[in-house]
Amino acid sequence: MTIIGITMGCPAGVGPEIILRFFAEKRPASVHPVVIGDRGVLERCGEHLRLPAPCISWQPGTELPATGIPVVEVSKLTPAEVVYGSPSQNTGRAMAEYITTAAHLAQAGMVQGLTTCPISKTALQGAGYSFPGHTEMLASLTGATSFAMMMAGARLKVTLVTIHRPLREIPAALSVDRVHELIQITHRALKVDFALARPRIGVAGFNPHAGEGGLFGHEEARVIAPAVARARDLGITAEGPLPPDTIFVKAVSGSYDAVVCMYHDQGLIPFKLLHFADGVNVTLGLPIVRTSVDHGTAYDIAGKGLADHRSLTAAVALAGIISGNRSRISRSGTAL
Amino acid sequence: MTIIGITMGCPAGVGPEIILRFFAEKRPASVHPVVIGDRGVLERCGEHLRLPAPCISWQPGTELPATGIPVVEVSKLTPAEVVYGSPSQNTGRAMAEYITTAAHLAQAGMVQGLTTCPISKTALQGAGYSFPGHTEMLASLTGATSFAMMMAGARLKVTLVTIHRPLREIPAALSVDRVHELIQITHRALKVDFALARPRIGVAGFNPHAGEGGLFGHEEARVIAPAVARARDLGITAEGPLPPDTIFVKAVSGSYDAVVCMYHDQGLIPFKLLHFADGVNVTLGLPIVRTSVDHGTAYDIAGKGLADHRSLTAAVALAGIISGNRSRISRSGTAL
Repeated sequence: MTIIGITMGCPAGVGPEIILRFFAEKRPASVHPVVIGDRGVLERCGEHLRLPAPCISWQPGTELPATGIPVVEVSKLTPAEVVYGSPSQNTGRAMAEYITTAAHLAQAGMVQGLTTCPISKTALQGAGYSFPGHTEMLASLTGATSFAMMMAGARLKVTLVTIHRPLREIPAALSVDRVHELIQITHRALKVDFALARPRIGVAGFNPHAGEGGLFGHEEARVIAPAVARARDLGITAEGPLPPDTIFVKAVSGSYDAVVCMYHDQGLIPFKLLHFADGVNVTLGLPIVRTSVDHGTAYDIAGKGLADHRSLTAAVALAGIISGNRSRISRSGTAL
Repeated sequence: MTIIGITMGCPAGVGPEIILRFFAEKRPASVHPVVIGDRGVLERCGEHLRLPAPCISWQPGTELPATGIPVVEVSKLTPAEVVYGSPSQNTGRAMAEYITTAAHLAQAGMVQGLTTCPISKTALQGAGYSFPGHTEMLASLTGATSFAMMMAGARLKVTLVTIHRPLREIPAALSVDRVHELIQITHRALKVDFALARPRIGVAGFNPHAGEGGLFGHEEARVIAPAVARARDLGITAEGPLPPDTIFVKAVSGSYDAVVCMYHDQGLIPFKLLHFADGVNVTLGLPIVRTSVDHGTAYDIAGKGLADHRSLTAAVALAGIISGNRSRISRSGTAL
């Protein structure tokens, strides 16, 4: 049985609303979602937005209820403590505890994967946690040191060598080791998590025309080409550095299963253009399965009944698929 | 009568082939295309690839033939001088003369617009011309000092503040004046060339999340925001700096008529994803109408019968539309 734990995210954001909308829809029978969060917050959100909220407290390890929304009750915030759009120290602390509990449940095998609803970095840090974000917190909780972010959709998958940094700092942040690490992590994820026997990876250049032989920059020759060569020496099917303005067209038309991107917008501009509503953020390299919705806490629309739950639906489904692929491969003993 | 002059581009590239394929198709009656190039090269290309090449020499200012391919004969290269995939000093010189002739014809009103087939910068410079490219040559020939490149398609239009430069040099290349100039040129083009009464322009940020309030970079506050403010003071509807990873989604869904982009791949990644085969390159700011195909000389496939002429078809059609819009506005005396 594949149980996917959905962390509720910031109680003052859109997390509770998208969870209720998600559970209100018909779901595939293969995945059993449970919420790791706050039952009272969900129920009050249901009343407020007139959404069904048939919550049932659930103890991990016990049988799942046949209907309703199973909730692992981590916090019991009062109505006064949860103001839509206004995170506080209390909501921040609760939000962090959902993540901690979820990581422990996943590591203990009580849930087979996690899908996380959005948190606020400011609220996380306000609650006393120094992690730069969700992913780093989960990596720390699970002892992972080599991890990466993939944005996954049916038409395009991208991984990012660098993420939240000023663009002018990227040339200094690109190293052969880091680009090579990303190609390796991407390859392993395509093989294991996406069950592709022979994954093909496109590696984007950094400069226009991938540097045009040095005329428009040297990061390709200095960093990217050696990293691709090293990956190919390991038997990985990787091509690049390729001109950034055509590599995504090629990937979408079937030449590559994923594109390794050098910076945030290089990957996210094409990804969001194709998968704005149904994109899923997957953390690669963790010992547990973790997907995430592709959007933030959206405090501006929290509590207004305007949130779109399609990314959550896609993220839970993908967590189920990855979890299934991983357990099949671990059962079959296939070498990674 | 709207006559569009098509320059043949590099005789050793795919220009002759896409021209023959273009003329072999049914065309709208509103535009009359003529070739500015080499009749013999076209005829031999037709024989070689078994494409119809009913060329007729045409003297600008005389009546157009009712059928066939009218050619302004600028060069008479011998068969030995034209080797597919191998440009020479002679083909380079001829290619440059097509452009010079075309610019003169357009300025004299003998043709109402130009569509240029691809040239090779190396061949241009080998023939003794020091221009960095096609656009700069046309700007010089027509005395234009403020010009810009737009990539135009039915779903998305982008203009580029910087083009062929290493990405690490862009922060230093961005200035309030240049960004403001681009917003102005883009606004004028949308009003005049695309006949939009109230154009709405989105201006992209430079860094992830448009800098997230300075956390991920300062180019937005230092350069882009002041340039947008200055444009708005002039009554231009411009919004930005906006997060680069969502601005194109918004533009495609109808929020903006064009997106002003800070660097080559920021604009071309989304543009090529949407308009790989039918994108048109438009030079804004010239006193003459000029569109161009969205691809290069493609020496690797020249003479092989593999070239796709759809971008040429779209470019000629757009040159006709822009020419019509400009002449309507100049007749009506509308202030630009």
